[in-house]
Amino acid sequence: MAAATRAKRVDPSARITVLEAGREIGRGTCSLPYFLSGELEEKSLQARDLNDFEREGIEVRPATRATVIHPYQRKLESSAETFHYDRLIVSTGSRARCTRNLGLDPEAPGVWRLRTIADVRKIKQEIQQRPPRRVAVIGGGYVGLEAAEALCHLGIKVTLFHRDAAPARLAPTLAEELVQLFLRQGVEIQLNSDVEKIDLESGLLVARTPQGETRGQFDAFLTASGIEPETTLLKEAGASTGPSGAVKVNSRGETSLGNVYACGDGVEVPNPRGGVGRWVPLATTAARLGRVCGENAAGGSRRLGAIHGALAVRLFSKELGMVGLPQDWADCRPIEVEWGGKGYPFPSRGPGRCLLFEDRRTGRFMGMQALAPQVSGLVDLASLCLEQELTVQEMQDLDCAYTPPLSALWHPFYLAARKAEKSIGGRHELY
Amino acid sequence: MAAATRAKRVDPSARITVLEAGREIGRGTCSLPYFLSGELEEKSLQARDLNDFEREGIEVRPATRATVIHPYQRKLESSAETFHYDRLIVSTGSRARCTRNLGLDPEAPGVWRLRTIADVRKIKQEIQQRPPRRVAVIGGGYVGLEAAEALCHLGIKVTLFHRDAAPARLAPTLAEELVQLFLRQGVEIQLNSDVEKIDLESGLLVARTPQGETRGQFDAFLTASGIEPETTLLKEAGASTGPSGAVKVNSRGETSLGNVYACGDGVEVPNPRGGVGRWVPLATTAARLGRVCGENAAGGSRRLGAIHGALAVRLFSKELGMVGLPQDWADCRPIEVEWGGKGYPFPSRGPGRCLLFEDRRTGRFMGMQALAPQVSGLVDLASLCLEQELTVQEMQDLDCAYTPPLSALWHPFYLAARKAEKSIGGRHELY
Repeated sequence: MAAATRAKRVDPSARITVLEAGREIGRGTCSLPYFLSGELEEKSLQARDLNDFEREGIEVRPATRATVIHPYQRKLESSAETFHYDRLIVSTGSRARCTRNLGLDPEAPGVWRLRTIADVRKIKQEIQQRPPRRVAVIGGGYVGLEAAEALCHLGIKVTLFHRDAAPARLAPTLAEELVQLFLRQGVEIQLNSDVEKIDLESGLLVARTPQGETRGQFDAFLTASGIEPETTLLKEAGASTGPSGAVKVNSRGETSLGNVYACGDGVEVPNPRGGVGRWVPLATTAARLGRVCGENAAGGSRRLGAIHGALAVRLFSKELGMVGLPQDWADCRPIEVEWGGKGYPFPSRGPGRCLLFEDRRTGRFMGMQALAPQVSGLVDLASLCLEQELTVQEMQDLDCAYTPPLSALWHPFYLAARKAEKSIGGRHELY
Repeated sequence: MAAATRAKRVDPSARITVLEAGREIGRGTCSLPYFLSGELEEKSLQARDLNDFEREGIEVRPATRATVIHPYQRKLESSAETFHYDRLIVSTGSRARCTRNLGLDPEAPGVWRLRTIADVRKIKQEIQQRPPRRVAVIGGGYVGLEAAEALCHLGIKVTLFHRDAAPARLAPTLAEELVQLFLRQGVEIQLNSDVEKIDLESGLLVARTPQGETRGQFDAFLTASGIEPETTLLKEAGASTGPSGAVKVNSRGETSLGNVYACGDGVEVPNPRGGVGRWVPLATTAARLGRVCGENAAGGSRRLGAIHGALAVRLFSKELGMVGLPQDWADCRPIEVEWGGKGYPFPSRGPGRCLLFEDRRTGRFMGMQALAPQVSGLVDLASLCLEQELTVQEMQDLDCAYTPPLSALWHPFYLAARKAEKSIGGRHELY
């Protein structure tokens, strides 16, 4: 919808048709956990509805599935009619990974997920009809964590199962702190637990762990164990995909097919520094690339800026933030700093902990993870440090705001930069 | 104390003596409003006391006033003895401007200020002994605003008098919003009101306004109408000062006198882009330059990074943030954006408002003012945008974190950048 709106603004005379396989448009996916928890009402999820778009001259066809692209004839077949296009923008998004693997019927009672507004309506209805005592969340990525928080807010006893040793690919210290944070709220996180079998009839869940097997009894199962790019439409038309399996586009949003653009979670974004593209399925990526596609498809000229995967999630009293792309961290040295421990009277100041990833060879700053009362500002600042290719040591020269109720005199990045300098056999001890 | 500590760390064999005219060291000036409000205890104001420094091998002499520097003989006279030095670091700070002008005796009951821990002790004692009904705060810079907030927290009725048309040099819309914010807490801000006379006996305050005169009756008067650099010691020794009246140093912290360094609120910091130095009397500036002086004086080699005047203040439910130096804004176009208005269920998201200052000629980003629930992150990010010499339009490519409870999909800087692009006759309308 960002692409369609942008295209219409750039060329008001353009005839724009949106085909949507489902019934919802602009479904505000990021807001779903907060619709589930009751913090957001359903009407606030969709900034604009079908009529708003129609009024702007954008024709929307819900329940119409695009089936085949004929790029040479500029023709698009759909479940309704066949369309001719000058420019085509494909935004087929992603699909859930786990539900399929476990063989669960997404329509069955007790099988929950957080992909659409309808998914949340179903969960809320089931909770109202037969309040569940215990729910299993499967997947400890940030969506799984958000889902567990939301269910906990509703007073439901939650156990989260995660395949890997750390939720959300966190470094060990942050992972441990996150597990404790959840435990204090009564949410148990089972790590290294690969869910193998769910029996809906009996409510039995069986997970494989390094120690063997673990079993649990649950009233419902929320699956959030990752997504994969939904690329069938474009791949069948011959569009190139990248190593991640997502469709490749250049910085103008163009696929390898003439006059076909792509955006959304099905797409890899180009790496402005060269090298392979990156699959960064976030709302911010989708919105920014969507605007670029819309503008260019309508005759404008715009390029996508760098994507660093900036991400923040609220989890109970803390916020989890990440930036940088984990595939870049393999050869990095993590530098950890803590601030605002016990006794700090101002809750926004701490306690907090962050890790900066430093390229061992060049000293370049490559990414950050943080768990603190407020992380958005840290994430955004770190994102610009990445964009500007600073070294970790250069980050000690950031000029940051200080006032006792809000921040510390020495910014966490300053502390990390000093630590990096010191341990590299640089100058001296941290003051 | 930052300089002394750093010097000792760099050269543990150095003999370091600190002369302090008063009785307090490392007085935690920024924390004083929160000691006043009762949010901080006195013991948390001084991170380290005299004994801590002595233990590190730093000799501290309180109540010893440095009186004359003889730079050619490397000799320093003081109220006690005369010292010979290899390197001298001067950090004489600033002095209050207003108290003197109004001829008030700072020791008199009902005459308050927020410069030292002793000042706050005096206020707290007077409040306890004879709780004041009405207090006038004179000066609407950020210290005056913090003081008014602190007194309001204590249940005291406060009127703030400010000489200029806007508190803290804010742009008109922000100034108006700030005045309303204070008014909702019962604090009246009288703008364009230059306090001319205070009669302690009767409690009468007379201020000149464009409409003539305004009078009020108060039980106490807290003066916070600005500071000026305290440079007597260095100036008398022949050190150069800049247009601001503060002492000039280079990026190594060196004054024009051989072997004499200077830091703190009495000093202008160099402008790394060339041009005149800037007087930016903030704790962050002082701490960073202090470390540079300490390191260099002890034989190290370090340069001060750029200072952009990043600043944040908590004011009731909002935070006020600023970055960039107002003298640079004269020829700038302010670009204003608002976000998260009524109906947003997440309080950290809004409502907020910020102004970005854009150089009319070059499009360069020159500074920001913001009033929002959380501003530190915005200020720090804006500070790095200044450092990297971005244009306002380039700020639309920042990759920022988004999650509904914490932030908006489109970052405020994105909205401002789009607005700048559009109004410059650039591309198209804001999506």
